[in-house]
Amino acid sequence: MSVAVRTRLSPARRREELIRLGRELFAGQSYDALSVEDIAAAAGISKGLLYHYFQTKRDFYVEVVRSAAEEIRELTVPDPAQPLREQLKQSIASYLEYAEHHIEGVRAVFEGGVGSDPEFRRITEELRAIYIGRILRGLGVRRASPTLRLALRGWMGYVEAASLDWLEHRDVDRDAFVATLVRTLETAVTTAS
Amino acid sequence: MSVAVRTRLSPARRREELIRLGRELFAGQSYDALSVEDIAAAAGISKGLLYHYFQTKRDFYVEVVRSAAEEIRELTVPDPAQPLREQLKQSIASYLEYAEHHIEGVRAVFEGGVGSDPEFRRITEELRAIYIGRILRGLGVRRASPTLRLALRGWMGYVEAASLDWLEHRDVDRDAFVATLVRTLETAVTTAS
Repeated sequence: MSVAVRTRLSPARRREELIRLGRELFAGQSYDALSVEDIAAAAGISKGLLYHYFQTKRDFYVEVVRSAAEEIRELTVPDPAQPLREQLKQSIASYLEYAEHHIEGVRAVFEGGVGSDPEFRRITEELRAIYIGRILRGLGVRRASPTLRLALRGWMGYVEAASLDWLEHRDVDRDAFVATLVRTLETAVTTAS
Repeated sequence: MSVAVRTRLSPARRREELIRLGRELFAGQSYDALSVEDIAAAAGISKGLLYHYFQTKRDFYVEVVRSAAEEIRELTVPDPAQPLREQLKQSIASYLEYAEHHIEGVRAVFEGGVGSDPEFRRITEELRAIYIGRILRGLGVRRASPTLRLALRGWMGYVEAASLDWLEHRDVDRDAFVATLVRTLETAVTTAS
């Protein structure tokens, strides 16, 4: 893992490589369990050099989460040629597949710790807004009514909470779970319209 | 506010009074915005004495959240003489009324900050488990199937996320919002059964 960062890289490229490494590290370990020493050791660089790129562990983590959010956004881009239900199924299935391989990272993002962090919160809120925007486009709705907005926001919470539970227990077939999530959205939208 | 803690109280009683004060303070201000100095000043005691009762700000906060969770649990106890739908409506309406008066506190609990805190997470998970237990009792279900458990856990996420959105926008009538939440639960349960 550390090969790429050990070789001579431009500062921007090395920063990128460190963030990529962070995504792998935080996928399997919680924010609190992973120390700056661990991160520097995995990157094969000194703590001092790591601090040169990221002022604090929190700054590094926020960049890692931002980068992961971008990856999730791209992984779940729906295929507009498909019917909306199919788009949703594929998008949710891609998210669940990602979450299966980044379980600690997903937990940390949706469970969070004590206190709040505006920058961190903005990243998750933007990702939710992107999903809601995609659904609205799929529905052909330009501007959600207050009840539809509430339903979509609620449904995002449903997906996040149920996914964490699903990842923990793994006692429901993935396709069946995805189908339930899609049905729940359809009902929520119908009820709100 | 500080009168009660200025008078001579037993240590246990004073600790309780400090937690009660913390509930008021954190209801309107975020964890990060409120300093130990602010808390001590509001209590009319020295920082040193505050640290005597709670080793860190985080420890104090966790006790405040625990106490708030107990209050919420009691406020939302359903009336078993009522039909389940009515129990749910009353319970959710009580929660929303509480949340309206403790908006920052509710936000902090459900949005969280960077990292994770096992003790803090346990308090919120326990509260969710209590709600799920009440619903199962209302349904006369002894042990939830995996799909029902997922549906109930998802619905809790729906309520939390939609409530935060509702508190922020206040553009949907409370009774209508409560009715939607109950209907969403009914659909989720029917679909999962």
